[in-house]
Amino acid sequence: MRVRVVVDLDDQSGMAEPFVFSNWPPAIDEEQRNKLTLLATTYALSHGLLYLPPADVPPPAPTSAIHAPLALFPAPFPRKLFENVQRLQHIYNVLYARIALDTAFLDTVMGAEGVAKVDDFTRQLWQSWKRLRDEGTPEPVHLGIFRSDYLLHAPHGSDEPVSLKQVEFNTISSSFGALSERVSGLHNYLLASTNYYGCSRHLTSDNLPPNKTTSTIVEGLATAHRAYGVKGAYILFVCQANERNVFDQRLVEYELLEKHGIHVIRQTFDGLFTSAIVSADRKLTVSSPLHAPPLEIAVIYFRAGYTPVDYPTPAHYAMREALSRSRAVSCPTLALQLAGGKKVQEVLTRPGVLEKFLLPVENKGRFGPEVFSEADVAAIRASWVEMWGLDDHDGVEKARTRSSTLVLKPQREGGGNNVYRSAIPEFLDKLSREERAAWIAMALIEPPESVGGYLVRAGGADTGAKKADVVSELGVFGWALFSGREAGVEERTGGWLVRTKGRESDEGGVAVGFSVLDSVLLVD
Amino acid sequence: MRVRVVVDLDDQSGMAEPFVFSNWPPAIDEEQRNKLTLLATTYALSHGLLYLPPADVPPPAPTSAIHAPLALFPAPFPRKLFENVQRLQHIYNVLYARIALDTAFLDTVMGAEGVAKVDDFTRQLWQSWKRLRDEGTPEPVHLGIFRSDYLLHAPHGSDEPVSLKQVEFNTISSSFGALSERVSGLHNYLLASTNYYGCSRHLTSDNLPPNKTTSTIVEGLATAHRAYGVKGAYILFVCQANERNVFDQRLVEYELLEKHGIHVIRQTFDGLFTSAIVSADRKLTVSSPLHAPPLEIAVIYFRAGYTPVDYPTPAHYAMREALSRSRAVSCPTLALQLAGGKKVQEVLTRPGVLEKFLLPVENKGRFGPEVFSEADVAAIRASWVEMWGLDDHDGVEKARTRSSTLVLKPQREGGGNNVYRSAIPEFLDKLSREERAAWIAMALIEPPESVGGYLVRAGGADTGAKKADVVSELGVFGWALFSGREAGVEERTGGWLVRTKGRESDEGGVAVGFSVLDSVLLVD
Repeated sequence: MRVRVVVDLDDQSGMAEPFVFSNWPPAIDEEQRNKLTLLATTYALSHGLLYLPPADVPPPAPTSAIHAPLALFPAPFPRKLFENVQRLQHIYNVLYARIALDTAFLDTVMGAEGVAKVDDFTRQLWQSWKRLRDEGTPEPVHLGIFRSDYLLHAPHGSDEPVSLKQVEFNTISSSFGALSERVSGLHNYLLASTNYYGCSRHLTSDNLPPNKTTSTIVEGLATAHRAYGVKGAYILFVCQANERNVFDQRLVEYELLEKHGIHVIRQTFDGLFTSAIVSADRKLTVSSPLHAPPLEIAVIYFRAGYTPVDYPTPAHYAMREALSRSRAVSCPTLALQLAGGKKVQEVLTRPGVLEKFLLPVENKGRFGPEVFSEADVAAIRASWVEMWGLDDHDGVEKARTRSSTLVLKPQREGGGNNVYRSAIPEFLDKLSREERAAWIAMALIEPPESVGGYLVRAGGADTGAKKADVVSELGVFGWALFSGREAGVEERTGGWLVRTKGRESDEGGVAVGFSVLDSVLLVD
Repeated sequence: MRVRVVVDLDDQSGMAEPFVFSNWPPAIDEEQRNKLTLLATTYALSHGLLYLPPADVPPPAPTSAIHAPLALFPAPFPRKLFENVQRLQHIYNVLYARIALDTAFLDTVMGAEGVAKVDDFTRQLWQSWKRLRDEGTPEPVHLGIFRSDYLLHAPHGSDEPVSLKQVEFNTISSSFGALSERVSGLHNYLLASTNYYGCSRHLTSDNLPPNKTTSTIVEGLATAHRAYGVKGAYILFVCQANERNVFDQRLVEYELLEKHGIHVIRQTFDGLFTSAIVSADRKLTVSSPLHAPPLEIAVIYFRAGYTPVDYPTPAHYAMREALSRSRAVSCPTLALQLAGGKKVQEVLTRPGVLEKFLLPVENKGRFGPEVFSEADVAAIRASWVEMWGLDDHDGVEKARTRSSTLVLKPQREGGGNNVYRSAIPEFLDKLSREERAAWIAMALIEPPESVGGYLVRAGGADTGAKKADVVSELGVFGWALFSGREAGVEERTGGWLVRTKGRESDEGGVAVGFSVLDSVLLVD
């Protein structure tokens, strides 16, 4: 029988010393890694931390599930920075509500003379919104379920202290909220059941912050449902066909029903063609052979519609427009979806723009009662990296000069379209003057180097936990419900998501290239 | 668009009329059935109502799971009968504790001159128990986690009111407790989310009784852990290799850890050969490369060891004996496992036997303070069908005469060994006089005819819900902790299980032949 003496591998003398990222994760042996993996995947399977398995033709009712990709250890984030972005989320919730309410601003940035001019997807959404306004459709009730995404920024060879910098602000279809909560449960369970074999003094339950994302999302939806004011009305989940991340959505449905008695009907855009009717008085109903009479819809929760792929025909855009014409609360409205554009993110960084949305001196009470301070503005600004538009007068030139520390991002949604560093000059050579309006340049965020993790792929792929250099992205959830400027914004912050992915290394390291769901370890 | 008017299919004029079993289940159409199946399997997958998939070589950590077999509708049981067997369980908990404490009784029935004489498995267990007593091993602390199984009895063409009759009383490895609780959750969810399309006035939440089996099992184990008295000690789960019903066990582990901070180590008998040590002072420790020093065991929870298949060599019986020598609380002890023998069930029905265990006049306080009444004795008796031993003086003759309404059951565990009705005479011709001691004759329980259900096989087999004639078996859970006669019995009743299986029909009906997990619908 082998016996191992369990020792604390951290430096015992250094309890007060700052956390060293490159020492993460702590060392464990193969036996421990295998045991943690067994406990982790078993827990994941039994707690809804699941995907549907890949299938050419999914069965009419699912018969099996695989565990979602997951990290064995939580990802370290400095406590103060984590707490700070929780606080910032309140400001962000209100800020993006005000952006969505500022028609003139959005028209300028995302409209016919802005991004819509060059980006077809943006143009479609903006035109729908414009038509509804021109028709005289009343200001809708907006629900935003937001996720603000951050990376740790620790510039190499700089004295700058580590910070959290915003990657993007999502105003539509923010996913992995419910699954993220399950990963927190998983890491708490692994800690409680194994103490992680005493491999790190940092792994204590005090350092695993609570994560109540599901109830935050559900609270947002339920509050919107209440605002609509019809007790038995349904919430419509607009979903993609053959969604494999369906449990993330079902867990929200279960809690809506259990805690609020609110029913959900799921439909694809295609399904809505035959089931949805918006009446003359703008009531949205969805019919189903299982329900008579048709169901009145209080809230439309879009878990699809964030990418052009979801609108393969003009009829799909027309359906989105028809839904937006109804008095059901859209989560998000067209305005709120446009507010989440990358170009908006860049314009906000320009001098005076943020101030106009937040400071009472600047906006003269245009945005309701809530008042923010100069310190709030500074805190939001501090969460950003430098950004500019390629349509700035020296935008392209600056991007060329500083390309080695930049990423270029188009408005286009769906990922894989960014242009990094050395690829930038050649890309700029080909970019037409007109297309520049859709692109922003962002200073690259530099996550701490040599941070590792143990990553377990989604079930069914190769098994076991792979050690890899990783980058962990933190998303903070919040919601906002609002309608018109006077009423103010009802909003709440709660829950978070960590996605960790293998770091693609230029220095010959292994490119793991897949991302897993993770949780937060608070470090000092 | 199709529209269906939802109507109550039950007879509206008959609200006060008694429930008619042959009207069950209510009619639903194919669309409704498919939708219920989709909702059911999705819920099952996301709530741990799972099996591991079949695999020749299971992966070291599970990557996927299939939903357990399940019924779409709960199974009807008359409210009064359901409540009655809940009450009876208290008496049963104490009764089986007293049987386990009555060495002379168990020696007579299950010992060298009883079942052990002809049944090898019983002999092995009884001999181990006898050796421990002969060595002077102190009376152990016994933990029983019990499940008393019943069928509805509604004799065809008789005026006898429907009743619940006991099939057997399980004193070891009672499974499906945690999964059963999940099926209750499932049927509550289907009702809340669809109202079962208004197909039956019986389907109301008041008629779905709560089911807290997991916490009952966990409470029993935690109470035994406390009785052992060492705070950090582990509970040992003795499991079968490649157990596919592992989630049923893991859900108990999770609650032990979450609610009581109690840790579990899982081992097979084979694993224990190299990991288990019982010290001179009878302390059981289990070593593991993941733990140093070895873990002290407070409670041994057998989820294996109930069938001879689990003891392929004499060393396996020796391991069971060694574990039983320790002062860890066995769930169950050898005595308690023997008390669950079918022959004990039969002997209890003989005149005066039950009385000796329960009535103070008869047992003169031999069994501690708790006193039962004649009414209690009568209630227990009323839960039994007629039984006798084939070794009774006219046992074989009576079995031959009444074979058409009988089942013969051997002591042998593992199922599939019973002899029914027309097969009985030929079987009796071959049975040796000596072997008779192992067999009991039981009057066949006659469940209501033409009761149906919608059964969904375990995921991965063919999909969809099949309508079938069914028989539903109700199991009631309870636990008892005791040591010696004076101290009395600490016990609790809580939770239940329904297993529903396709009825094999002699009249040419479809033999579905698989069983599913189900829940209770209370009817009047």
